[in-house]
Amino acid sequence: MMEFQKFFASDNCATVHPRVMEKLAEVNRGHAISYGEDPYTKQVLAQIAELFGGSCEAHFVFNGSGANAVCLNAMCPTWGGIICTELAHINCDETGAVEHLTGGKLYTLRGNAKNKLTVEEMEPLLSKIGSQHASQPRVISITQCTETGTVYKLDEIQTIADFAHANGMMLHMDGARFANAVAALNCSPAAMTRLAGVDALSFGLSKNGGMFGEAIVCFKDLPHMPYVRKSCTQLISKMRFIAAQFDAMLENDLWLSAASHANAMAKRLSDGLCTVNGVFCAAPTEANEVFVVLPHQIIEPMRAFMDFHDADFGMDTVRLVASHDTTEQEVDAFVAMARELAQKAAS
Amino acid sequence: MMEFQKFFASDNCATVHPRVMEKLAEVNRGHAISYGEDPYTKQVLAQIAELFGGSCEAHFVFNGSGANAVCLNAMCPTWGGIICTELAHINCDETGAVEHLTGGKLYTLRGNAKNKLTVEEMEPLLSKIGSQHASQPRVISITQCTETGTVYKLDEIQTIADFAHANGMMLHMDGARFANAVAALNCSPAAMTRLAGVDALSFGLSKNGGMFGEAIVCFKDLPHMPYVRKSCTQLISKMRFIAAQFDAMLENDLWLSAASHANAMAKRLSDGLCTVNGVFCAAPTEANEVFVVLPHQIIEPMRAFMDFHDADFGMDTVRLVASHDTTEQEVDAFVAMARELAQKAAS
Amino acid sequence: MMEFQKFFASDNCATVHPRVMEKLAEVNRGHAISYGEDPYTKQVLAQIAELFGGSCEAHFVFNGSGANAVCLNAMCPTWGGIICTELAHINCDETGAVEHLTGGKLYTLRGNAKNKLTVEEMEPLLSKIGSQHASQPRVISITQCTETGTVYKLDEIQTIADFAHANGMMLHMDGARFANAVAALNCSPAAMTRLAGVDALSFGLSKNGGMFGEAIVCFKDLPHMPYVRKSCTQLISKMRFIAAQFDAMLENDLWLSAASHANAMAKRLSDGLCTVNGVFCAAPTEANEVFVVLPHQIIEPMRAFMDFHDADFGMDTVRLVASHDTTEQEVDAFVAMARELAQKAAS
Amino acid sequence: MMEFQKFFASDNCATVHPRVMEKLAEVNRGHAISYGEDPYTKQVLAQIAELFGGSCEAHFVFNGSGANAVCLNAMCPTWGGIICTELAHINCDETGAVEHLTGGKLYTLRGNAKNKLTVEEMEPLLSKIGSQHASQPRVISITQCTETGTVYKLDEIQTIADFAHANGMMLHMDGARFANAVAALNCSPAAMTRLAGVDALSFGLSKNGGMFGEAIVCFKDLPHMPYVRKSCTQLISKMRFIAAQFDAMLENDLWLSAASHANAMAKRLSDGLCTVNGVFCAAPTEANEVFVVLPHQIIEPMRAFMDFHDADFGMDTVRLVASHDTTEQEVDAFVAMARELAQKAAS
Repeated sequence: MMEFQKFFASDNCATVHPRVMEKLAEVNRGHAISYGEDPYTKQVLAQIAELFGGSCEAHFVFNGSGANAVCLNAMCPTWGGIICTELAHINCDETGAVEHLTGGKLYTLRGNAKNKLTVEEMEPLLSKIGSQHASQPRVISITQCTETGTVYKLDEIQTIADFAHANGMMLHMDGARFANAVAALNCSPAAMTRLAGVDALSFGLSKNGGMFGEAIVCFKDLPHMPYVRKSCTQLISKMRFIAAQFDAMLENDLWLSAASHANAMAKRLSDGLCTVNGVFCAAPTEANEVFVVLPHQIIEPMRAFMDFHDADFGMDTVRLVASHDTTEQEVDAFVAMARELAQKAAS
Repeated sequence: MMEFQKFFASDNCATVHPRVMEKLAEVNRGHAISYGEDPYTKQVLAQIAELFGGSCEAHFVFNGSGANAVCLNAMCPTWGGIICTELAHINCDETGAVEHLTGGKLYTLRGNAKNKLTVEEMEPLLSKIGSQHASQPRVISITQCTETGTVYKLDEIQTIADFAHANGMMLHMDGARFANAVAALNCSPAAMTRLAGVDALSFGLSKNGGMFGEAIVCFKDLPHMPYVRKSCTQLISKMRFIAAQFDAMLENDLWLSAASHANAMAKRLSDGLCTVNGVFCAAPTEANEVFVVLPHQIIEPMRAFMDFHDADFGMDTVRLVASHDTTEQEVDAFVAMARELAQKAAS
Repeated sequence: MMEFQKFFASDNCATVHPRVMEKLAEVNRGHAISYGEDPYTKQVLAQIAELFGGSCEAHFVFNGSGANAVCLNAMCPTWGGIICTELAHINCDETGAVEHLTGGKLYTLRGNAKNKLTVEEMEPLLSKIGSQHASQPRVISITQCTETGTVYKLDEIQTIADFAHANGMMLHMDGARFANAVAALNCSPAAMTRLAGVDALSFGLSKNGGMFGEAIVCFKDLPHMPYVRKSCTQLISKMRFIAAQFDAMLENDLWLSAASHANAMAKRLSDGLCTVNGVFCAAPTEANEVFVVLPHQIIEPMRAFMDFHDADFGMDTVRLVASHDTTEQEVDAFVAMARELAQKAAS
Repeated sequence: MMEFQKFFASDNCATVHPRVMEKLAEVNRGHAISYGEDPYTKQVLAQIAELFGGSCEAHFVFNGSGANAVCLNAMCPTWGGIICTELAHINCDETGAVEHLTGGKLYTLRGNAKNKLTVEEMEPLLSKIGSQHASQPRVISITQCTETGTVYKLDEIQTIADFAHANGMMLHMDGARFANAVAALNCSPAAMTRLAGVDALSFGLSKNGGMFGEAIVCFKDLPHMPYVRKSCTQLISKMRFIAAQFDAMLENDLWLSAASHANAMAKRLSDGLCTVNGVFCAAPTEANEVFVVLPHQIIEPMRAFMDFHDADFGMDTVRLVASHDTTEQEVDAFVAMARELAQKAAS
């Protein structure tokens, strides 16, 4: 069996939350009609809709890439375009799944200093509208939290949504770290989505203590979503086992407290590291991801101590991700080790 | 919570095997590098390869439709054709995922009385080879067990494989019920695949006591499979949790004993029902699926007693699927109820 | 240069009509804004719309496969299905272009004895509607004339259209030989399309004396057609040269007289051949295609005399296609040769 | 009929060359087997191969977007990536056809000041190779002449080709204005393609006096190209009418002299305009496209005089394209008008 270890490589390296494991065991009794037709799954889907204040519909899929591809297929025809940042997960990390499964085009923009789309940057793309030579902009896709750990503010989302709707587009939110964003902004899930004009959300679970499975939440009527899901191979047969994970997470707002904890650990890590000589903040720590520049010589020793990935940008810049199961002890040990190694390196 | 019940609607309605649940809990310790890079996943993949006698490579995906679509994308270009039966799962039950994800065409044939492809029926398609107006036949896809519960014999597979290879095609096996077929033929997994000329296998788990997750096993070198998998949204982040399920199933050949049990329960069910007045066998019970014609009046009462689906063919023909967790008591109770209702109906 | 010869292999082997050649030369003066933005193209497109009684929109594309693929992409999402006969051109002769360019599925039916779809045969497919496991039937595609030379009657089209619309589908007509069908039924183009419930038409020209280029005619509002066209590579830059061909053909209803002539030549050929000993009609000659069974020994000598193709069905059955430039002399010479060879063969 | 006018909007607004019209008429005698099976087409295809020094294979398609999409589908799987500049025609002007028809991803780079790809800029993309999360770079696509009128030098092409081949990629050249580039560099067609390492070429005709139709020339063995072509709807039935256009153009190197003339007219135009007060060169005039900054007030009056398009970049920057049928008189009249209007504007 695997040896016990913890690290900061990604929140998808973390354990499954114990409450999720318990709930999986609980629902593993008797038979249940497959493909989401069982009453338990329907009930959990209804609870998710309620979490967002109703007037929406939730669907379970396997993973984040699947949630994104299914949403975007449902919103974008083969002759359509999807606006996102260059660093967007759908552009950089999904092996072209969005192009493959929609047949459409990604319009990639550099984004602002916080890796966010702005109306200013998108406006020139409006000239594509009505030109038969150009993929028609149909969807704006934002990632919340972004790939560099920043968080769109509510009014920023609303502004983008207004721009989208005024120009015949829909707004998709890739919420692989949705919980961390909600925790960061201390707002309601509805405020960050339905009320801010989001049309469809990829509501992540795996990075917040789930085992697998995400939910698509449609605030706009997209009645063909189930057909899209299956035609993209994202329909699970034993759906109660995704439902169970969300059920566990919804109880007592466990999804929020888990994410808040991860955010707090990231803050502690960030704060600690920034007191180390030679360590610099590369981006603000707004949720559960920390981007810091480390002294060159300590990067590999630190990585050997607790694994992490390089950032996609910046010399000697690394990404450290805190999880629901990250402890203060681990954070403090990491900071202490950084301090020790940095001192050695400096002397 | 869901009320406790059992039925015959499908083996994907069944519980997750307790050993699988235990193993999932066991591996839920510490962090593990995601996307299959952890040593545990690598080890289980190696064990799967070993199960097939080596000289093959295994990859985990989420579900059967995914396994099929990924395999077929890896084997068939957009201008290619895939030969299968009309009743094939990839043709009837996947909302066009194969066409969508490969861009290619399905060449559907009626199949013989046992729903199997034969060389005789495929031969006319050879005339397509070399014609620029026709999708080029590149893959033959057979389902083992078939959608009507029958099982290809080893020499039947070998004959189809030889035909495929002699004509520039590859052979894919949709093994959603692969374990049941191996149990039925009492042969080795290698004998039914690698040694019989199969080039790639969708190795099912969900219908045999898994929670989710299947394996693709490539007997032919298909080195780009990981890229295909991700571009089809079938790459899980926390892969150890699929590995764990296979690990549990490989221990003491649990996958085989679970399938053998399901097959035995189906046989018991079939044998029992065929002693009931007015019940007729609609297809031979070769694995874990039973197809019978029931007296019209008892169908709905029986369904209310223990749920099942209508067959895709035949008047008053129903499909009853036994699972790893089906008990003799349940089978006998169902047969007894059929007998009682049939007697009432006849009187 | 090519040696001069004529034959019956296909109407797409024929010459370009002299009036088309003249018109191409006429419009080849000065520059014209490309991609259909020139006033001449707009005027011809308006004339085409008028030909169908208005309330429709025409778009030029390069060829028949392109017209079909563009229409069907515009009408069918990736999770949709298109109902057609097994012998449909879109199923048999386009190398999977429809699956490739729509991402959807073809539901192929055998068709009746005249190779036509019937409501009876389509009805079982209605059970797919609403099932998340099945490609959703969205389009019915009929070929007029059919691939076996028969012609749907107006009420047959209307019946299919009503069935389509009652069940949330659209009706597409592959009119590669639309002119021959109109000539055969002696009706107006509107009667066979707009008034009979057709939603979009692939209006063929190449097989009726054109050089290249076809028109899509939309009776249903499909405003995104231009984007679909370009994203399927079917937008020509120098569009005036397709417009010119239609312009030539619309003058004095040349398109109709050319097709009537081809039909008459086919009838003459069919009538003549059927008086030859040992020749049998394999299908009624309703338009410009003749299907006959020839005595086995004379097939190759006849083919050497004037080339033709085997039919896709039937032993010793051949397809003879008359064109706008087929002459009575050629027909009579062919029949005479058949008679001579048949006599020799019989003696 | 259209009123007679000439302008600088694009070389695809120009007339068809008289020799092309004559050749179209010449081959319009008798019947010819369709889809490229006629001997005349085969002969012209062989002549094209010879033009490139042999060891290559040519295929006719309808248009430039089609040539690009077919080539790229043949070279790039659904999980592959195609490297090009942001301004590349395949990225900006084809409504996503490449993504749609290949299923793959475009990796767009800014390009250098002359809108050319450089190894330096591409090198970071090598890190994608072998990562299952990234579309695998499989093709580099360069446009020759580029979209800003510049021309890759032979050694620049060779350097890119070497980079491509050293890293498992192929090199595609979008040669919509290939003839203008050959004329500009005064080299052989082989030197710019086969000998420089190009694997497949979209060989344009429409912008150089053709009516429609382009050739794909494969220097690398891509035997499935005909299937790709049909599955992308790019197979013409009456292929002799594309062959005839190339035939006309190959006689006495008409293709080259026509392009040389266009280049010379562009040079004359560029030279003339640059003597006008307030007009600035926005890019070097290397082939038949002129990019100049005009005084703001004269842009619309000039456009009314002889139509042209704005450039895709730069304030008050316009693109003027000379064609095979542009005359010195037209150029001089345009320059004179510019001078007159600029003087008026300045006074």
